Amino acid sequence: MIAEILSVGTELLMGQIANTDAQYLSRRLAELGISLYRHTVVGDNPGRVKAALLEALRRADLVVTTGGLGPTEDDLTKEAVAEAFGLPLELHAPSLRAIESFMAKGNYPMAENNRRQAMMPRGATVLENPVGTAPGCIVESGGKTVAVLPGPPRELKAMFEAGLAPWLARRSDMCLESRYLRTAGVRESDLENRLRDLFHSGNPTLALYCAPGEVTARITARAETPDAARALLEPVEAEIRRRLGDRVYGEGMDLTPEAVVFRLLDERRQTVSFAESCTAGLLPARLVDVPGASRVLGESHVTYSDEAKHRVLGVRRETLAQFTAVSAQCAVEMAEGARRISGADWAASTTGYAGPGPADDGTPAGTVYIAVAGRDGTSVRECHFPGDRAFVRALAATAAFDMLRVALLEAR
Amino acid sequence: MIAEILSVGTELLMGQIANTDAQYLSRRLAELGISLYRHTVVGDNPGRVKAALLEALRRADLVVTTGGLGPTEDDLTKEAVAEAFGLPLELHAPSLRAIESFMAKGNYPMAENNRRQAMMPRGATVLENPVGTAPGCIVESGGKTVAVLPGPPRELKAMFEAGLAPWLARRSDMCLESRYLRTAGVRESDLENRLRDLFHSGNPTLALYCAPGEVTARITARAETPDAARALLEPVEAEIRRRLGDRVYGEGMDLTPEAVVFRLLDERRQTVSFAESCTAGLLPARLVDVPGASRVLGESHVTYSDEAKHRVLGVRRETLAQFTAVSAQCAVEMAEGARRISGADWAASTTGYAGPGPADDGTPAGTVYIAVAGRDGTSVRECHFPGDRAFVRALAATAAFDMLRVALLEAR
Repeated sequence: MIAEILSVGTELLMGQIANTDAQYLSRRLAELGISLYRHTVVGDNPGRVKAALLEALRRADLVVTTGGLGPTEDDLTKEAVAEAFGLPLELHAPSLRAIESFMAKGNYPMAENNRRQAMMPRGATVLENPVGTAPGCIVESGGKTVAVLPGPPRELKAMFEAGLAPWLARRSDMCLESRYLRTAGVRESDLENRLRDLFHSGNPTLALYCAPGEVTARITARAETPDAARALLEPVEAEIRRRLGDRVYGEGMDLTPEAVVFRLLDERRQTVSFAESCTAGLLPARLVDVPGASRVLGESHVTYSDEAKHRVLGVRRETLAQFTAVSAQCAVEMAEGARRISGADWAASTTGYAGPGPADDGTPAGTVYIAVAGRDGTSVRECHFPGDRAFVRALAATAAFDMLRVALLEAR
Repeated sequence: MIAEILSVGTELLMGQIANTDAQYLSRRLAELGISLYRHTVVGDNPGRVKAALLEALRRADLVVTTGGLGPTEDDLTKEAVAEAFGLPLELHAPSLRAIESFMAKGNYPMAENNRRQAMMPRGATVLENPVGTAPGCIVESGGKTVAVLPGPPRELKAMFEAGLAPWLARRSDMCLESRYLRTAGVRESDLENRLRDLFHSGNPTLALYCAPGEVTARITARAETPDAARALLEPVEAEIRRRLGDRVYGEGMDLTPEAVVFRLLDERRQTVSFAESCTAGLLPARLVDVPGASRVLGESHVTYSDEAKHRVLGVRRETLAQFTAVSAQCAVEMAEGARRISGADWAASTTGYAGPGPADDGTPAGTVYIAVAGRDGTSVRECHFPGDRAFVRALAATAAFDMLRVALLEAR
């Protein structure tokens, strides 16, 4: 089955938001073995929505639309789908009752424009919205299918999982299996050179993706059953792991260095604390994204001023005077101070200039010192990260987790 | 001038990344007065890239491509552009020298596949890549223009700003002006009802965008000069501000509640500190995204365990025993403790259950207490946020900044 995604929303064409709906659907359609060939985004314009829909229906068996189902006046996707298939819109009474009940529960007034959300193309399979007002639908005609989903990401995900995914799973005839081998601190062209000959295979396919501080090797195999796809995939995965060794920090599309650090700590029933200057909260914020983080994190401190570095963490005034706060010495004392005051098994610290612009003493933006303190001592690294303020901070956080991962593995 | 964006990358169709390149370009093209009608994403497939390019060229005057310029074997955009225009690819010697120099500076080996990056369609205007190896280009033929940009967001932005934006600014014949009126804690349908009659104007246009915990009203006017566009826009902006009052926390596409809090603090030369449980680092991480944050933030503490709440912030053991850590009482003592130990003028605290699943005592996920302590006392709010763990934490952080904003305004 060949699919396309059609997203409707002037906010996408104005760049107000990124198309994360298309990203989510892409991943889930791949997992269902559906081949996705295109994303299209058009604005809230009835003529252009209908034209894009008709084009997509010429190329694909399934078109999944996102957006244009809300109560506001610029929402128009269902109308375009009904017109494209030559179907009238009719009031769907159960949807109207569901909308009324949703509004009543939240103590929101039922507006006239909420009633429009209960209009459906004749004969459509209605998809309930478990977390919002706008229902979606599936319309089938002439061998083609359009699935209409809402734009707000929470509603899209809930409706996809509860309604569309089970419907599609019953119709899919091919399985894709993918592996995502994750590396941190390795260049794309370096990986490309190590894996060059593996790019020529048609099945499984191999591709490299870059994200800040990370490169991922994706391997995807296609077959009629999950088992057959895995049998094609596994020898290629083993070969790549052999070539890359411990450069691979783990496997999984959603895996992060912090999730690996969490797992290593949790397995050993150990704890960590952080002492941050330039990353200022990113390290605990990222670690706590992993459910269960309270088992490995008790406390964490942002010491942005020199005064706080001394008072909270015990960094010596002489260290700050002699080497400044952006120094290997300060990073070491921050990590050791955080480990001491928290009683944690491990501590990591960051101190640096995230920019914009160089420091008063001429130290360039992107200079960051990262230290990791453990039972057996403290290691420290001087890093020079490219990019703007947010990018430098994100790279520093990724590097701190990767340093912690390596320290945990070496302490095994 | 009508434009479309064509993004090339199987990683987009697999959902590995969101199309943030298209978002960035959309915003910048709008600022340049270029009407953007469509985004298209296709995979790394030469036939489908070429077909999508030819279709886009039939509809638009300008097609901006992103991706498919890297050294790896799946990169093929320039080839497709050359074929679409019937032009040969030729070695561009200055680009080859720039790539060699970039690789030498970073101490990277020059790979054979890096040389392919210096091949350009004949007659193209080459766009230098200030932060990476892949140069881009502008190709003009038969009244149509294709601009070829790299996929990695840092490289895309740098090349757009240094090369393509100045080139386009010289050719643009129409200006768009937009205002983004930002609200936090207001429902979309509530705003829609207050502004209903204003949606019918053709110029300026009005649209509402939702993000976690926020709704933005965008007003966009189109005219031949920036002044004329502003003259159309300003009366509508004034009317919306009159209707929404202090629900509007500020104006700007990139504005955030934390940037407003930073500005209010900085104007008064006041400081803030945080005591976080469930948000665990998000508050300082978001505040420090604002350049100059060191003037208003000295330190911040994550106290995830009860033990840390008591030891670091001085929350009384009786409070924790009687009310638990997820209580208004605990939030108040956390905020007051953070204000006391830091010496800051203000402190905000968060404590709650982000999920997944309810707490052991049955308190549902999404229950969060937020307190703000200042010179004149402490206020506290009980919140019930929907959604998953990351969503609850993000909403709690937004609500904490909005509470702090209101407290700052009331203390004026």
